[in-house]
Amino acid sequence: MTDNSATGITVAIDAMGGDFGPSVVVPGVVEAIRDLDGVRATLYGDTAAISVVIDDLDADGLPLDIVECSEDIEMGEAPAAAIRNRPDSPIVRAMRDHKDGTVDAVVSAGSTGAMVAGSLMLLGRLPSVDRPAIATVIPSFTGRFLLLDAGANVQCTPDHLLCFARMGTHYSRALLELDEPKVGLLNIGEEASKGTELCIESHRLLSAAADVPFRGNVESRNLLLGEADVVVTDGFTGNMVLKLIEGFGSFLQKAAAGAGTGSSGGGLRDLLVRMDYAAYGGAMLLGVRGTPIIAHGASSSRAIANATRTAAKLAALRMPARLEDALASLA
Amino acid sequence: MTDNSATGITVAIDAMGGDFGPSVVVPGVVEAIRDLDGVRATLYGDTAAISVVIDDLDADGLPLDIVECSEDIEMGEAPAAAIRNRPDSPIVRAMRDHKDGTVDAVVSAGSTGAMVAGSLMLLGRLPSVDRPAIATVIPSFTGRFLLLDAGANVQCTPDHLLCFARMGTHYSRALLELDEPKVGLLNIGEEASKGTELCIESHRLLSAAADVPFRGNVESRNLLLGEADVVVTDGFTGNMVLKLIEGFGSFLQKAAAGAGTGSSGGGLRDLLVRMDYAAYGGAMLLGVRGTPIIAHGASSSRAIANATRTAAKLAALRMPARLEDALASLA
Repeated sequence: MTDNSATGITVAIDAMGGDFGPSVVVPGVVEAIRDLDGVRATLYGDTAAISVVIDDLDADGLPLDIVECSEDIEMGEAPAAAIRNRPDSPIVRAMRDHKDGTVDAVVSAGSTGAMVAGSLMLLGRLPSVDRPAIATVIPSFTGRFLLLDAGANVQCTPDHLLCFARMGTHYSRALLELDEPKVGLLNIGEEASKGTELCIESHRLLSAAADVPFRGNVESRNLLLGEADVVVTDGFTGNMVLKLIEGFGSFLQKAAAGAGTGSSGGGLRDLLVRMDYAAYGGAMLLGVRGTPIIAHGASSSRAIANATRTAAKLAALRMPARLEDALASLA
Repeated sequence: MTDNSATGITVAIDAMGGDFGPSVVVPGVVEAIRDLDGVRATLYGDTAAISVVIDDLDADGLPLDIVECSEDIEMGEAPAAAIRNRPDSPIVRAMRDHKDGTVDAVVSAGSTGAMVAGSLMLLGRLPSVDRPAIATVIPSFTGRFLLLDAGANVQCTPDHLLCFARMGTHYSRALLELDEPKVGLLNIGEEASKGTELCIESHRLLSAAADVPFRGNVESRNLLLGEADVVVTDGFTGNMVLKLIEGFGSFLQKAAAGAGTGSSGGGLRDLLVRMDYAAYGGAMLLGVRGTPIIAHGASSSRAIANATRTAAKLAALRMPARLEDALASLA
């Protein structure tokens, strides 16, 4: 995912985010910055806690800065209130610097709700986007696919899903380098008449949209078989499906470790490698004026490193401007 | 699952149902009937096709009857129209005989939609049930749990989910022999405020229902960890989740077969045994005046045998009458 075109990019990272804070986040950022040519990283958080970790990492000379933040957002806080009430938290400080152009992307493994609320309140929506959506890359049995919305909007309209499909198409072309991504609608059957009213009307809109390479419904039983590269759904269903797949993947890792299958060949070992979420670099909130990258709360250092690389790549690709250009041209 | 108390029960089976028809269904029924003391089976379908299979099975003397049916319902047919237009199909004939009391349960691996429509149109709802629900037993990493609605109602109200919880509680007490089943609401977070309006209001109703042993929301990431014995959700989400788990289970079987993990010990082998859906005996449509058992379209003979055993057990338990007694007493 590294790219020389990211030269000149600065990535902001919430050093306090995630289940393990600076001790896991900072080594991940250092790992990414070490081999990203010309990319700077700015760590937001408790300077003392961050410095202790950096001192152990042989990071002299790396393009790393620290922005001291005196407070933090807890995982349980109501997102919008947290953004208003914690002006000196890493997410709010980094979003403000992103808005000002001091940094080019914001990565956090902290509260997903606060990242979404902060992006909407401090960066704002793209003019052509009514509802930004979380776009997450999920490993499948055959490769990977993009799922959106993975949880930003629990209730959606068919127009929202059409916009998700358009954003997902452009995003997968840029990030996954797919020329002609196949777009599918997550549903409980293949026929156009299946599912909720939202499904049926979304199927109609997607079928009629000439700019969307729509291939029809994708049943959940076939979701991991790679039938589609971009799968659209409402944020409730998307979050439900994402967490079920994550739960399955993490259990599988544990069960396989217990069974000692690491040394056996064949499909299962490949599957376990692919189902390792740390290899995937965070989810972008698509549709806002910026590049917010939401990393998993349980991110390892390797996952943070990959999220940092993804952030640099997406910032260099000027993803928000590309999306707005593409969407505005349809209006 | 066998039980001597099933003596005198007759189970009706759609011999033409499922992906493989009589060649798979009939051996499964014969296997079940061979060791179910005092239970009769009536096979509905093409007598010639059924007889050819029976002749190869050393089934002389077993309590087996055949009811000739001159037509069948295809998987793609609109369910309600199929019930009206195919009076001599196995599902319609068996449902009519069930209504008349000639048979005590109906098993089919054919169209789920036709089984639901046929049950509603020919058997009718229980007086206290507004929306019958498909209740399916799903293997978890730690045991098994009951999911409902697994697909009968794509759109539901909080009152429907409350009724599902009540039916699921009584059903799991009888079928799974759990004295105090834990009931959970499938959701994307643990807090009462999470999810759609349906989730939030259902959480409130379930919390206030003194007769439901409600333990709160169950996140999909923890669904397979056995946090709840009975998990309620709308039929769209339930069907989505069921099919995703099935897809994962069937892929895992294939991947493991390729990797040769069958001989290695530990958690993975146990997991594979548990994730074998053939071991589970079909899903009952709860809330109608009868005992319709919906088997998976891809059922093996062993799965049909287990569905037949479950049907006999549930008929002997007088499940519909027990449900109505329990629900009516709340009114």
